[in-house]
Amino acid sequence: MSIESSVVLVSGGLDSCLVAAIARQSSDPAFLHLNYGQKTEKREKKAFTDIADFYKVEKRFEVDMRHFALIGGSSLTDATIPVAEANLNTSDIPQSYVPFRNANILAIATTWAEVIGATKIFIGAVEEDSSGYPDCRKSFFQLFNQVIKEGTKPETQIEIVTPLISLKKKHIVKKSLELKAPIHLTWSCYKNEDVACGVCDSCALRLRGFQQAGVEDPIPYARVPNYL
Amino acid sequence: MSIESSVVLVSGGLDSCLVAAIARQSSDPAFLHLNYGQKTEKREKKAFTDIADFYKVEKRFEVDMRHFALIGGSSLTDATIPVAEANLNTSDIPQSYVPFRNANILAIATTWAEVIGATKIFIGAVEEDSSGYPDCRKSFFQLFNQVIKEGTKPETQIEIVTPLISLKKKHIVKKSLELKAPIHLTWSCYKNEDVACGVCDSCALRLRGFQQAGVEDPIPYARVPNYL
Repeated sequence: MSIESSVVLVSGGLDSCLVAAIARQSSDPAFLHLNYGQKTEKREKKAFTDIADFYKVEKRFEVDMRHFALIGGSSLTDATIPVAEANLNTSDIPQSYVPFRNANILAIATTWAEVIGATKIFIGAVEEDSSGYPDCRKSFFQLFNQVIKEGTKPETQIEIVTPLISLKKKHIVKKSLELKAPIHLTWSCYKNEDVACGVCDSCALRLRGFQQAGVEDPIPYARVPNYL
Repeated sequence: MSIESSVVLVSGGLDSCLVAAIARQSSDPAFLHLNYGQKTEKREKKAFTDIADFYKVEKRFEVDMRHFALIGGSSLTDATIPVAEANLNTSDIPQSYVPFRNANILAIATTWAEVIGATKIFIGAVEEDSSGYPDCRKSFFQLFNQVIKEGTKPETQIEIVTPLISLKKKHIVKKSLELKAPIHLTWSCYKNEDVACGVCDSCALRLRGFQQAGVEDPIPYARVPNYL
């Protein structure tokens, strides 16, 4: 029996790098990258390519979703909204929230999966230790799986898999080291493309994870505050 | 109290033209058009613009989803798959099916609606008298409404409205005449951009509707078979 194909959503960040490592254990992964006009897209694309090269993944697809930048509403895509410094102690939805982004991403991933015959979509969404985006919750993905079942051909079997959904960042760091995932190739910063800022939401979550795991982050930072 | 905003999905076809007429009755519509690389996109875009001009709609947004054509898998977007002549007596899913298209369309409509503060998304999906696409069923839209509720901000209230879902094409024709919808500006043919072919799935469904309604279709056709 040949191994089944999967679609792996690879943004180029830490979480998607670990998800790629996990997907490889049980499937033949095809990598999907979304360019949604975010400010650090060029650097993220490089991370995507580096991780795909590292794992010798042949099937790669980049989708241009720059209409997100035209629609605006998020500090990640709207030049008029500054990327805020992190506040990890609030449950408010931050300005970096790109409205309904994951539904858009999963919809295109499902389309590609149905055409190439992949049976799983791996996505590195994290619920607990995340920025509080509403489309990162377990319940959201469960519902989306029902929509896929309902909205695709009867013979199509596609399931969204979220192996990191209940992990904390420190566990993601530890698991990445365990699986020898190439985290030195990843990019997480929302603000810079050369040296990670260390203070945006994404840098703060990442650095806190490394600090809690007691491991040094292999990528360079402009500032490394203590998040413990 | 000011009238609420809505997003109306306007492909430029007959159904979306009627939906636009209906949406205007209860809301201030913003028109959304998706270019997904279909063969007749240019003609459909003209129909979209003509209908928007007719109704003096200021808020218009066109989204480039040409990655659908790159993914392929449908006769509408894949140049290597010919557009078949209609067979209205089969329940098979036709080759024109664009995998999970409506989920992609609704996802981007929801993103736009959340940013502009619209509370309804009007889509001219038809279940009964349709080509049998799985993402055109009432159950699919009901589930997607749950996904919207789960995946957007707590204060966001967006609902997908499908006023045509249970109508037959002949009723769509009659209702369009009743509301004086500008159906002479619409385009439905999957194959041609100058004169509608009259024999593709979309032309056949449309012509049968006009014939059953006992009304002449105002647009020109290369052939008008009897579909009664």
